[in-house]
Amino acid sequence: MGGNQGSEQGDRFADDPAFAVHEGGKLTVTPTRSIDSIADLALTYTPGVARVSSAIAAEPELARRFTWAPRVVAVVSDGSAVLGLGNIGPAASLPVMEGKACLFSEFAGLSAVPIVLATNDVDTIVASVAAIAPSFGGINLEDISAPRCFEIEARLRDLLDIPVMHDDQHGTAIVVLAALRNAAKVVGRELSDLRVVVAGAGAAGVACTKILLGAGVEEIAVADSQGVLHAGRGDLTPTKQWLVDHTNRAGFAGTMVSALEGADVYLGLSGGSVPESAIASMAPNCIVFSLANPTPEVDPEMAARYAAVVATGRSDLPNQINNVLAFPGVFRGAIDAGARSITEEMKLAAADAIAGVVGDEVRADYVVPSPLDRRVAVAVAEAVGACAREQRITR
Amino acid sequence: MGGNQGSEQGDRFADDPAFAVHEGGKLTVTPTRSIDSIADLALTYTPGVARVSSAIAAEPELARRFTWAPRVVAVVSDGSAVLGLGNIGPAASLPVMEGKACLFSEFAGLSAVPIVLATNDVDTIVASVAAIAPSFGGINLEDISAPRCFEIEARLRDLLDIPVMHDDQHGTAIVVLAALRNAAKVVGRELSDLRVVVAGAGAAGVACTKILLGAGVEEIAVADSQGVLHAGRGDLTPTKQWLVDHTNRAGFAGTMVSALEGADVYLGLSGGSVPESAIASMAPNCIVFSLANPTPEVDPEMAARYAAVVATGRSDLPNQINNVLAFPGVFRGAIDAGARSITEEMKLAAADAIAGVVGDEVRADYVVPSPLDRRVAVAVAEAVGACAREQRITR
Repeated sequence: MGGNQGSEQGDRFADDPAFAVHEGGKLTVTPTRSIDSIADLALTYTPGVARVSSAIAAEPELARRFTWAPRVVAVVSDGSAVLGLGNIGPAASLPVMEGKACLFSEFAGLSAVPIVLATNDVDTIVASVAAIAPSFGGINLEDISAPRCFEIEARLRDLLDIPVMHDDQHGTAIVVLAALRNAAKVVGRELSDLRVVVAGAGAAGVACTKILLGAGVEEIAVADSQGVLHAGRGDLTPTKQWLVDHTNRAGFAGTMVSALEGADVYLGLSGGSVPESAIASMAPNCIVFSLANPTPEVDPEMAARYAAVVATGRSDLPNQINNVLAFPGVFRGAIDAGARSITEEMKLAAADAIAGVVGDEVRADYVVPSPLDRRVAVAVAEAVGACAREQRITR
Repeated sequence: MGGNQGSEQGDRFADDPAFAVHEGGKLTVTPTRSIDSIADLALTYTPGVARVSSAIAAEPELARRFTWAPRVVAVVSDGSAVLGLGNIGPAASLPVMEGKACLFSEFAGLSAVPIVLATNDVDTIVASVAAIAPSFGGINLEDISAPRCFEIEARLRDLLDIPVMHDDQHGTAIVVLAALRNAAKVVGRELSDLRVVVAGAGAAGVACTKILLGAGVEEIAVADSQGVLHAGRGDLTPTKQWLVDHTNRAGFAGTMVSALEGADVYLGLSGGSVPESAIASMAPNCIVFSLANPTPEVDPEMAARYAAVVATGRSDLPNQINNVLAFPGVFRGAIDAGARSITEEMKLAAADAIAGVVGDEVRADYVVPSPLDRRVAVAVAEAVGACAREQRITR
């Protein structure tokens, strides 16, 4: 009944199938076993449940076996940086978080619960998520604006001993690295030889830069709207200062466009648009990843005239950089292994696993698997779990 | 895979079927529609979901139609007063909250999510639940110890405009009132003529007293472990002071046992045990509701020698006072009607509806329906929704 509320308002949403898919919401919680008798009731609920609760009280690790929590991911957002829509608040962000929960179920067989927050205050967000954490086996932070997302993730990682990951940072970074590994293969180059320009110093830009450094890329210039980050800039946040300390060793101080001259890789995470002359000035056989959605920073057709490999965030073009290739397997692997956190090494292992699914079939228009490729989450989960066990961070 | 973790530990839990029922947890979150194509992905997630989020951002009431939140109840506990087990903490309380969520699904067709809290601090609990509230359509507080439960419920009711109910208080009270209405019929009495002794001034004792007063019972004495509450007591919390102001008009200052002399109703919500001589001293055709679980305060066989109607919390005896008769229908009715809160009138309507399911079949061993009677939640939801609409507290 509730699901049909508002239908009387007429069919002003009837022309868009997206609204039909969202009617009544996209998720449901159901019991794993039905309750058909007083005996069922007495096992699922009182008095039987008291024996299970007592056992867990005496031996807390039994919660991993006899509750659902270890296999449930909270998809947490304050609705402050939702897709390209900006700060639209908790209620309006909920369809995105429900969608994410659907993907956790579909691709990783994990339950996921959207938790949208009526606050943008860092301290309140950290305290609230820490308070509800015993209900969950992992925390997927989502669509929280920079720079708050960095502090929120860092503090929750410190406070909690379950996997915590801000997907806009690390999900994107993992898939970008997977795609870049395969793109480098296509052009016959090593990661360590590539000169990379990262356009955007927000959540995704910072995380992509970190994972590329971790994977052995040596020459990176990161640009925000004011140009390339360098030590002479007077406006640096702590995160941007970190980037200055770890990138742009030559101390280049120009614009993003001027940095592209002779560069091997453009990684667009900023929106806006890049002129054709800038792409034309890149090195031969260059690589263009232009991830703004729905309008890439670099027109893909134009990019193809200069670049050997082009990737975007769009589902209607080849080489879609889609986070769904990473987060389901990352959480499934971490959770199955009983990992207490998600480390840089686990992210690198995830990227390798994604690239590995493409394997020998790699070519210019196939550097990442399809987002629907069911082999990906399995491979990622295996790699991430193995890495966690090697690092001895499992329970 | 995750669900079987720990099975290698051997079968020390194999003899108790309650543990088999809890293996891997009792709940799962699933998408309402599957994702089989790029087109499905583009409607459930980006880019289609952005159109739905934009619509809700422009017109917040659309969240009721296009998200799952209005039909999801959070079952919130800090694990401080779980069944008869006391303060066992969040992880150990989780099987109880999962069980409750199963009952919401089974009896009301509502999704419910257990939220267990890593804190007993009132301010942190209130702030955390308020922060996550946009994720839900109702808040069922559960197994939170008195007196904190009173303040937490009151503050959340003030802060939020969705139904909030502490079930240990009001669920119990609703079913007790339903049972007492029918028990009074059995002995041919009016509620207003009955002299009632309530043993226990905790969460359930306070709420039962309030609902009985609201239903027209005039003579109530409430006892805690120190005896009957009266104005001369020097140790009164604000809640107990309220009880003193509204009960025991005669100012009786003795023990609970002495108050039972000539009383018509004993309502046991305290644990402990009541001597046979006290029950023998009650009025002819008296009514004994002894709800401690698993061991009632008054032995049911002994009670039957003196009382015309006996009810307990036990599933193996007639007249089981079980909250599951109330909370699924109460939340379903409130949610379907778009009620902004759960009022005293809605609780009275729920009790009437439960009593009404028994109807003309009422007899000494059938004053409440079976907890499995599927008619109950439907009748309660209808009555509660109608009451909310009459009170004009719906959206």
